[in-house]
Amino acid sequence: MAGEFDFLRALRARTPAAAGVVVGPGDDCAVLLPPPGKLLVTTDLLTEGVDFLLAEVTPEAVGRKSMGVNLSDIAAMAGTPFAAVVSLALPRHPPGMTTRELADRLDAGLREMADRHGVAIVGGDTNTWDGGLVVSVTALGHAGRPVTRAGAKPGDAVFVTGPLGGSLLGRHLDPVPRVREALILRDFVELHAMIDVSDGFAADLAHILEESGCGAEIDPAAVPVHPDAVARSRLTGRPPLDHALNDGEDFELIFTVSEPDAAKLVAASPVPVTRVGRVVPGRGLWLAAGGARTALTPGGWVHSV
Amino acid sequence: MAGEFDFLRALRARTPAAAGVVVGPGDDCAVLLPPPGKLLVTTDLLTEGVDFLLAEVTPEAVGRKSMGVNLSDIAAMAGTPFAAVVSLALPRHPPGMTTRELADRLDAGLREMADRHGVAIVGGDTNTWDGGLVVSVTALGHAGRPVTRAGAKPGDAVFVTGPLGGSLLGRHLDPVPRVREALILRDFVELHAMIDVSDGFAADLAHILEESGCGAEIDPAAVPVHPDAVARSRLTGRPPLDHALNDGEDFELIFTVSEPDAAKLVAASPVPVTRVGRVVPGRGLWLAAGGARTALTPGGWVHSV
Repeated sequence: MAGEFDFLRALRARTPAAAGVVVGPGDDCAVLLPPPGKLLVTTDLLTEGVDFLLAEVTPEAVGRKSMGVNLSDIAAMAGTPFAAVVSLALPRHPPGMTTRELADRLDAGLREMADRHGVAIVGGDTNTWDGGLVVSVTALGHAGRPVTRAGAKPGDAVFVTGPLGGSLLGRHLDPVPRVREALILRDFVELHAMIDVSDGFAADLAHILEESGCGAEIDPAAVPVHPDAVARSRLTGRPPLDHALNDGEDFELIFTVSEPDAAKLVAASPVPVTRVGRVVPGRGLWLAAGGARTALTPGGWVHSV
Repeated sequence: MAGEFDFLRALRARTPAAAGVVVGPGDDCAVLLPPPGKLLVTTDLLTEGVDFLLAEVTPEAVGRKSMGVNLSDIAAMAGTPFAAVVSLALPRHPPGMTTRELADRLDAGLREMADRHGVAIVGGDTNTWDGGLVVSVTALGHAGRPVTRAGAKPGDAVFVTGPLGGSLLGRHLDPVPRVREALILRDFVELHAMIDVSDGFAADLAHILEESGCGAEIDPAAVPVHPDAVARSRLTGRPPLDHALNDGEDFELIFTVSEPDAAKLVAASPVPVTRVGRVVPGRGLWLAAGGARTALTPGGWVHSV
């Protein structure tokens, strides 16, 4: 399609020569110099109607989010993102704009988020169809020692990098992937396990616990509750803590470290972190306060603590 | 979604431990050992209604094609594919089957094509929505000296790896990416420029010529015409050669080499290849026979030769 080739030409013009990019968009493949350490790969696909409504958000925000959620996955391994490819399925008649305008504005948002983190968009595939908008991003990163979900140990402390909950009020569309924070933390302590909060704090911590074969107790009073969780609480009638534990799409990092490293972080963490609980033997996830504990069911509501 | 996690679990169970895969599906990123040489990245997204009709083809064929077109792009750089990630947007009510059955059958097709070429499916993202089926694949490869579209030189001979045209009769759904052939050719001669035939022989050769800044003359009598092009010709009334030059989705390789290497190939190529023309100075693409030449417009019909 002529339309596709025009868009590709625009992409090529906008892609600056980046370090490590031997061949950028426009050939059969992008060619990259292999980065140091291990290679990280992640992919996330966003669909209209599920992840966003084109009638309610700007294409730029869709672009930023599509790139941001992928960079957040690289951050969750304590990796450095360096390149990404983007595939689009564009509607023939997007609301209030042409297909070409939609593509250009998506590209601007994708590029803005990529540029913030030094990521080169090295290739893509642009399609037009009768369906809704689909944005698929694959991001590449590198890491000397990637931090998986499987390394948590009983006795570890559980931390989170920022306040949680209520992201639906707008933050979910403008994720701030904690790439820089993860790299600083990696250099300051030994990260045992890490994940980013996409499904929700409780659900994502449960992924760590499942992969690591242990449990955790969370101190409800220690969980940093975002003001948006309080605002959401007024709309839903559910406690702000419930929103903090379950809303998801916060894109903060949950991680575990040994007790000595936890003390080091509490004393002098180079980036904002909050200690919220501890890893325990056996399986399960609990809210623990004053010697009593209540099962914390990922995705379930917190009715009383 | 519970559905998503179940499918992911199934994926993990089906992914064998592959050499170079440190962490497979199920963590925030896949972790791979960096392969030798340069890193190749390509992505292709297929949509229902444009690339395939679910009412007419099996999900397995859609899976094979989605993976195959990406591996063909790696082949076109003379690279070795080693890993891929897959993102799906699945319809809630696919025709005649459940969403889960569609996902499993797509996965079987993707995996069949990947397995044939030693490619590990290391990650993915599965989404369900109210729209049609979208399959996005990103493939990774490595190459010591990737062959781009930009290296053709006046005096080079133009070759193609197999017969062309009429792929719509069925071959387009079961691409045979010329991965092995490209690696054998790379070791036998010095490949100057290469591309796979997706848009059509004329259109794809034109990409090489544009990137290389030269022209080409094609001998119409030398172009290998696929029997499917003859069959299509009977349906369309257009000459079989026209179908061979313009139909596309053949996934054969077009490449150029020096005259001495061309002689070497004609004498003793280790894989099937056909010499179809030569690269000339200046810009343009022509059919040349008996001292006369006719402009060959990519995508245009060949009315008389």
